[in-house]
Amino acid sequence: MSDMTSSFVTRHARLAEALNQHGLDALALNPGPTLTYLTGLHFHLMERPVIALFPLGNPPVIVLPELETAKVAGLPFKVQAFPYGEDPASWPGVFEQAALAANINGGKVGVEPTRMRLLEYRYLKHAAPQARFLHTDESLADLRMRKDPGEIAAMRKAVEIAQHALQATLPFIHAGVTEKEIAAELTMQLLRAGSEPEFPFSPIVSGGPNSANPHATPTERPLQPGDLLVIDWGAAYDGYVSDLTRTFAIGPVADEFAQIARIVAQANAAGRQAAGPEIAAEEVDRAARGVIEAAGYGAYFIHRTGHGLGMEGHEPPYMRAGNTLPLQAGMTFTVEPGIYLPGRGGVRIEDNVVITAEGAESLSDLPRELLTLPA
Amino acid sequence: MSDMTSSFVTRHARLAEALNQHGLDALALNPGPTLTYLTGLHFHLMERPVIALFPLGNPPVIVLPELETAKVAGLPFKVQAFPYGEDPASWPGVFEQAALAANINGGKVGVEPTRMRLLEYRYLKHAAPQARFLHTDESLADLRMRKDPGEIAAMRKAVEIAQHALQATLPFIHAGVTEKEIAAELTMQLLRAGSEPEFPFSPIVSGGPNSANPHATPTERPLQPGDLLVIDWGAAYDGYVSDLTRTFAIGPVADEFAQIARIVAQANAAGRQAAGPEIAAEEVDRAARGVIEAAGYGAYFIHRTGHGLGMEGHEPPYMRAGNTLPLQAGMTFTVEPGIYLPGRGGVRIEDNVVITAEGAESLSDLPRELLTLPA
Repeated sequence: MSDMTSSFVTRHARLAEALNQHGLDALALNPGPTLTYLTGLHFHLMERPVIALFPLGNPPVIVLPELETAKVAGLPFKVQAFPYGEDPASWPGVFEQAALAANINGGKVGVEPTRMRLLEYRYLKHAAPQARFLHTDESLADLRMRKDPGEIAAMRKAVEIAQHALQATLPFIHAGVTEKEIAAELTMQLLRAGSEPEFPFSPIVSGGPNSANPHATPTERPLQPGDLLVIDWGAAYDGYVSDLTRTFAIGPVADEFAQIARIVAQANAAGRQAAGPEIAAEEVDRAARGVIEAAGYGAYFIHRTGHGLGMEGHEPPYMRAGNTLPLQAGMTFTVEPGIYLPGRGGVRIEDNVVITAEGAESLSDLPRELLTLPA
Repeated sequence: MSDMTSSFVTRHARLAEALNQHGLDALALNPGPTLTYLTGLHFHLMERPVIALFPLGNPPVIVLPELETAKVAGLPFKVQAFPYGEDPASWPGVFEQAALAANINGGKVGVEPTRMRLLEYRYLKHAAPQARFLHTDESLADLRMRKDPGEIAAMRKAVEIAQHALQATLPFIHAGVTEKEIAAELTMQLLRAGSEPEFPFSPIVSGGPNSANPHATPTERPLQPGDLLVIDWGAAYDGYVSDLTRTFAIGPVADEFAQIARIVAQANAAGRQAAGPEIAAEEVDRAARGVIEAAGYGAYFIHRTGHGLGMEGHEPPYMRAGNTLPLQAGMTFTVEPGIYLPGRGGVRIEDNVVITAEGAESLSDLPRELLTLPA
């Protein structure tokens, strides 16, 4: 049995366990990371619906366009495929056959609310009118939350690629270069360093006042002396992603900017140090936020401290107040406190952390202090 | 009034017309191209739900995370924003306020089945339990199907960038290079030629037997003498995309390969020539398919002839049998017939076409005959 086959066997067994535990008879997935996790299959999310049904105790059933059938032919486990042609009028009938084969009508079927679209949902409901479709929310999150050593190795590599790409981009950055130019250069360096072209997200490069907006989009604004510059970027390797942030000074900056950079670096360290097995996710947030609040900048830290990371750029567990989920070995997430002074500038420092048997390890190790680039 | 403001005014007026025509009281959108088309706003599709409501006769209402509120501050039209914090427990209440402000409860609300996820749909239904949510399907497709001159200019540029990128990649291709290496080089050349980093799709590079799979993913297989090589790639410019395919020979190839390449080129020309205003979409398919069927390869052309193209890589109108939609000036789509010989190799030739007042223009003009690259 190949490694790949054995990993799918393990994953299918864990799925069965999760379905049992949550009283579900089947899971229905459209294209996305959970489908890839359970089958290795990739599909673009398009106007042609693709659905895989995982009935408890029976092999998966998949409905897909005829021109994609080659993808399921080589799978290392049994699957029943129901391909359809180009005329949408024929699709409901094919979905009915698949629902019959998976015997989901009358059953409780889990669906992923952040992935399932009304498009696929309509075909499912029509094909199995007596089924109850239940949102899995975080009930199935556990399936992918604890990464195995192969997954962590891929994430480590995605971090390494991202770090190399940033280092190769830094010599290009100085006052006068625009955010868009930096984003384009960083994107090329990510590919050159070995990232897969499907990044977790396009690099965020925000300078001066734009850096006070955590989700800014790169603009034509040229960097100016005295700017803070926030770069938030990630790579993909073997289907797993990284997500890092570092902040830079363009020449000498205002004392307060240097001060908030020191506070955020301390908050980042406090968040990473708080993380460990059996520690509640909210404790990571509390530790990082505590440093920023104690320094009087609590009102300017306007987002949670971090989010899970793996096949998706954002996935459970979330490091936020109120999340009492105990962290466990193999969980991977960001620690990314920030201080944002509206209209002036912001600082964010983001690392990617994995929970180990004893504590937590940061996969990323680029310097966290405010590095000054040429004005 | 700026161009941008006037274009949104026009688009909002066209939306109102479409809502009226289809008996809808409002449209509910989550992040995606239609939201961008109507507002200029971009959001990543994540675990934090974002919904914009467009009630007939009233300004749009938008529910979004607090940390994204800067995005709506600068919009050139009136909008009511309902931001929420990081605790999901507070989100249903915010959605209720927004539904009240947009007065959608009890109304008929259009939703896009290919975009709307169960995540957002659940919040909407909870916030407006008396509303009827109706799938817009192709009823609202008309809103974005006919492109204005600014949109066509962006698509022309996206085609130009893609063509430059391929030309810059060709010298890199010869027997021994892998599909993945070619895909990486083409990706870098796309960025260098000026593509936005969010491509419509990752380049498809498929050689030898893989080229017989229309939706292949690049592999580690090195090109071999006698291979057919299919490259299907696209660029993005100003939010609009291109989507082209050309096929190459790696050194001399089997006579039948050269023969199917000639047939597909004729089918491509026939499809483009059939297109024009008031011509049914299915006629484009019929013209291209007719050439391939007449040559005896009908069974090996296993997909429709083309799909609409614009802000999305696949959008209406679809060039397939049974689609009687009359083409109109400003509609943009692909013409991409192919012949796929299972286990041996395939040929596809894809252009991007715009319907004009008199006929159809191909935005792409790279040579369509089988070019031989070094074996």
